[in-house]
Amino acid sequence: MKLKCPTCGREYDEPVQRCECGEPVEFKLFEGEPYIAKTVWERFYDFWPVEPAMELSLGEGDTPLVKSRIGRELGVRLYLKNETANPTWSFKDRGTFLAVSYAVKAGYGAVGTVSTGNMAASVAAYAARAGLKAKILVSESASDEKLKAVGVYGADVIRVKGDYGRLYFESLKLGEKLGVYFINSDNPFRVEGYKGIAFEIAEEITPDYVLIPTSSGGLFRGIAKGFIELRESGLIEEIPTLVAVQAEGCSPICRAFSEGKERIGRFENPKTIAKAIANPYPPSGNAVLKLLREFGWKCLSVSDEEILEAQRKLAGEGIFVQPASATGVAALEKLVEGGGIEEGAKIVSILTGSGLKTLATAGQGNARECPLEGLENCVSF
Amino acid sequence: MKLKCPTCGREYDEPVQRCECGEPVEFKLFEGEPYIAKTVWERFYDFWPVEPAMELSLGEGDTPLVKSRIGRELGVRLYLKNETANPTWSFKDRGTFLAVSYAVKAGYGAVGTVSTGNMAASVAAYAARAGLKAKILVSESASDEKLKAVGVYGADVIRVKGDYGRLYFESLKLGEKLGVYFINSDNPFRVEGYKGIAFEIAEEITPDYVLIPTSSGGLFRGIAKGFIELRESGLIEEIPTLVAVQAEGCSPICRAFSEGKERIGRFENPKTIAKAIANPYPPSGNAVLKLLREFGWKCLSVSDEEILEAQRKLAGEGIFVQPASATGVAALEKLVEGGGIEEGAKIVSILTGSGLKTLATAGQGNARECPLEGLENCVSF
Repeated sequence: MKLKCPTCGREYDEPVQRCECGEPVEFKLFEGEPYIAKTVWERFYDFWPVEPAMELSLGEGDTPLVKSRIGRELGVRLYLKNETANPTWSFKDRGTFLAVSYAVKAGYGAVGTVSTGNMAASVAAYAARAGLKAKILVSESASDEKLKAVGVYGADVIRVKGDYGRLYFESLKLGEKLGVYFINSDNPFRVEGYKGIAFEIAEEITPDYVLIPTSSGGLFRGIAKGFIELRESGLIEEIPTLVAVQAEGCSPICRAFSEGKERIGRFENPKTIAKAIANPYPPSGNAVLKLLREFGWKCLSVSDEEILEAQRKLAGEGIFVQPASATGVAALEKLVEGGGIEEGAKIVSILTGSGLKTLATAGQGNARECPLEGLENCVSF
Repeated sequence: MKLKCPTCGREYDEPVQRCECGEPVEFKLFEGEPYIAKTVWERFYDFWPVEPAMELSLGEGDTPLVKSRIGRELGVRLYLKNETANPTWSFKDRGTFLAVSYAVKAGYGAVGTVSTGNMAASVAAYAARAGLKAKILVSESASDEKLKAVGVYGADVIRVKGDYGRLYFESLKLGEKLGVYFINSDNPFRVEGYKGIAFEIAEEITPDYVLIPTSSGGLFRGIAKGFIELRESGLIEEIPTLVAVQAEGCSPICRAFSEGKERIGRFENPKTIAKAIANPYPPSGNAVLKLLREFGWKCLSVSDEEILEAQRKLAGEGIFVQPASATGVAALEKLVEGGGIEEGAKIVSILTGSGLKTLATAGQGNARECPLEGLENCVSF
């Protein structure tokens, strides 16, 4: 606290109200880099477990909530929360930012993660932003193409030969030993970052249902915690019904849920086009299961055909997502057919990541050929 | 105007103040889909030449302005306006949205464009959103890979054999005849949409310089017009110095500017890694030239090596852009070395499009191999 008398110039460290010269004192002029806040991190400042290090922010969060035509024929109102409009084009950035804020504060010189996709790129990017080293552990079979979008940020990418499933726990152990803060899929700071999705939705509408593509369970838990905290703090009256959506070819949580089990089991031979949510033994699976039971929520699984159809429908509205991101919309019909959905219900589907990241699976770039001289025939319809 | 008496229920179409029964009248209850506005389109509502059709919006605009470390060693403050966080991951969406708003209002059933890259995807996406047909004219040599990101939106992609340069004008003629509204690079509504970049920057800081990757000239003209309108309307005091940045291998505007010419000439044999700004005969080139002269602004060109180095520097801050989008940062050193830049000057560089769109040129996805058993040695440093 630095006070100064504008009349005589005398300075004070303690909170006096008037100067010895008899004139009023005032706080010294603001110095340094002004930062005028308006993002979800400031609007919901009290809700974060660590101070968001805004100088490390890349502008994650505050993504568009877009009204969709898709729900119309089903008699519901569908909204799309477009997380592809994040700095590395997936929802992961929200969690990575908060976890990196913590890592820097805690004095780590390096961060890491176990991922080949969205999370790998996100951790690599925020590590670069923060000036930290990044150790990205990927599976032996990860394609060079996918790793390009990670390597550009200058991360140390390590292809690990051996049981990929063990890597999650191995990395946490090793990280603790070596001073590398591993920000895996359900790191507690990462999960907190996802609360912002709930906060932003609640600022715009009061949804009845939220469809959430669910793999590790980190995103689901974060959104759930966000809505629960909003209600506990009195900002909203009711928590919407959350729906965990998985691919049929890898649905360990939905399976355990429908079988009435307390714990998930490993899903053998996972096979789905929705690679980004194909975790056969999700580390937050049991935690998600508990939430589903406690709140009477739902778990729905969808086929690859339904996923691809939903991806096409979304592109038909101008939004190009990864297959995994289309699972929410793919589950919409099942949700409505399942009954109990009131006419005009407000349903939000979370679109998790950009379709540019899975362009290889996006079909052909079909084009007709046409000579310039005959252009009129080609353009007319 | 629908007024109603809450006491007796009588309704009025004209603006009466009290009911015949003697009681006060009121407007009827709001019905329909509520839309509560907060985007750049509403904040600067008066500045658009056509009403933005918000039901067609995909959440374009309101992109992050990120403080960069890059300018520090040069003694300036660099800010990055990250346009890759748009619905189709480039600045084009702002212009496309406004032009499609017009096309729908004007009753067109189809829109079109001449492009193989960012603009093609953007027009295809917004056409899908609006339920319009889309005719995308691409060059004979456009790669299948690039067209994938356009075809997903359901557009009719036409590979035209013949002089690509003529297509711009041919398409406008044909479009008028056939009822297809062509939204090319410097369509006047498109240019208006780009004003939002200036508006958003001015909401956050008062920049001294703005670095703008310049190809057709549409983006440059839009940002210029935005700042000019802000000053004319009294919202800002001074217009920043705008800097058009081109690739050395295709710099028709900078060449004409430095040679003191009134009109640009065709740039023969263009060759640059920055494909998105490699227009050898930009349709708004003369208009940009006039602005540069009138306001005493600057034109700088940068080499492919400088562009790639800038792309690496940006990735080193967590932002992965196309080569064309790195030209602004590539020109920073030249701008400062050119002299006349005050210490601590605030400089904004416009990052136009996502690096995911040019992944093929992004180098290798290098990864080390490591057995799980020896992971400690690989992760330690």
